[in-house]
Amino acid sequence: MEILKNRIISEGKSLDGGVLKVDSFINHQMDANLMFKMAEEFAERFKDCMATKIITVEASGIAPAIFVGYLMNLPVLFVKKKNPKTMVEMYTTTVHSFTKDREYTLSVSKEYIKANDKLIFIDDFLAGGNAANAIIDLAKQSGANIVAMGFLIEKSFQKGGDTLREKGYNVHSLAVIDDLRNNKIILRD
Amino acid sequence: MEILKNRIISEGKSLDGGVLKVDSFINHQMDANLMFKMAEEFAERFKDCMATKIITVEASGIAPAIFVGYLMNLPVLFVKKKNPKTMVEMYTTTVHSFTKDREYTLSVSKEYIKANDKLIFIDDFLAGGNAANAIIDLAKQSGANIVAMGFLIEKSFQKGGDTLREKGYNVHSLAVIDDLRNNKIILRD
Repeated sequence: MEILKNRIISEGKSLDGGVLKVDSFINHQMDANLMFKMAEEFAERFKDCMATKIITVEASGIAPAIFVGYLMNLPVLFVKKKNPKTMVEMYTTTVHSFTKDREYTLSVSKEYIKANDKLIFIDDFLAGGNAANAIIDLAKQSGANIVAMGFLIEKSFQKGGDTLREKGYNVHSLAVIDDLRNNKIILRD
Repeated sequence: MEILKNRIISEGKSLDGGVLKVDSFINHQMDANLMFKMAEEFAERFKDCMATKIITVEASGIAPAIFVGYLMNLPVLFVKKKNPKTMVEMYTTTVHSFTKDREYTLSVSKEYIKANDKLIFIDDFLAGGNAANAIIDLAKQSGANIVAMGFLIEKSFQKGGDTLREKGYNVHSLAVIDDLRNNKIILRD
C-alpha cells in the first residue's frame, strides 16, 4: 500500500536488532486517517471471507482492528495480556513479544469466541508470528476458524509470514520489510 | 447519551466490589459502531477546544480515542504501560488500576508531547480518577495543557469525576453510574 510505504520511508527508523521504529504514526502516536485508510484496504480484501468477528491483541492492534470492525460492521474482540476481575471463563495461551523481549499470558473470554466464529486477525506487526500463533491456539481451543489475517507491516526476514502462509493461512500485509540491517529500511516493491 | 445508557442497561452487569462488567461491547469485545457514535458525541462537544492531540492509555481507551482522532483530524497518542525498546526519552508516572488492582508505570515519549500541545484525554472509564491524574502528571512534566477529558462511563460514587471538576478540568462522561451496590446498576438520568 503506497501511502503506508511512503510514510515508512519518510518517518520510519531502522534500529539495531531488527527493530523498525514507527511510533510517530503506528504504535505510540497514531495517524488516525492513515489507520482508517489501511482498514479500508483490509475491508476490501476481506469482504468475501464471511467473517463473523475481528480479533486482535492489545494494544497496538486495537486501532486498526476497530476501524476494520467499523467498516465491516463486525464486533471486535481484543485479547488481553492480563485477565481482569470481570473475566471468569477464558481460554489462555502464552506468547513471546519480540519488541519487549518477554513472555505474556493472553486471555480471551469464552463468552466471545465460539466454535461457529469465522475470525479475521488484525495486528500492527507480523515478525516471527508469535502473536498470530497465539491467536491460532486460542481459536483452536474454541473451535473457531481464522479466515484471514491482516497486518500493517510484515518483517519478512523474521519468517513468521512464510510459516503462516505455508500452513495455509490467508495472510495479507500492507507493507513488507525485507531487510533492516545496517540501519537501512529495505521495503518490498 | 441514550444509546450507551440503553446498552448498559441491557448488557451491563453489576459485579461485587463496584465493578461494572461491560466487556461485551466496551472493553473486551467492542461494538465498533457504538464506539464511532460515542466518538461523534465527543467530537461535537470538544470542537471548540482548539485541541492539538488526543491522548489515551492502553488498552481500552484506544478504540474510542482513535475514532475521536479520526473525526477531529488529530493525532492520537497512547500512553504505554511498559516502555518498549524503541522509546528512548520519555516522561513516566505511576498509576493504580482499580479493575486489575495493581500499580503500573506509564510512559510517553518526549517526542510526541510538547509544551504547546492542547490535549484531549479519552478513556473508557472514570472511577477514582487514577488514570486521569497520571495523564495530568505527564502533561505537567511536558508543559502541555489538558483542554478536555472524555469518558464513556463515569462511576460517580468513586468520586474521581468530582475531584477533577473541582480542580477545573473540563470533564465529560457519556453515561454516569451513581450506584452499583447489591448487583444493581443505577444510571443517572
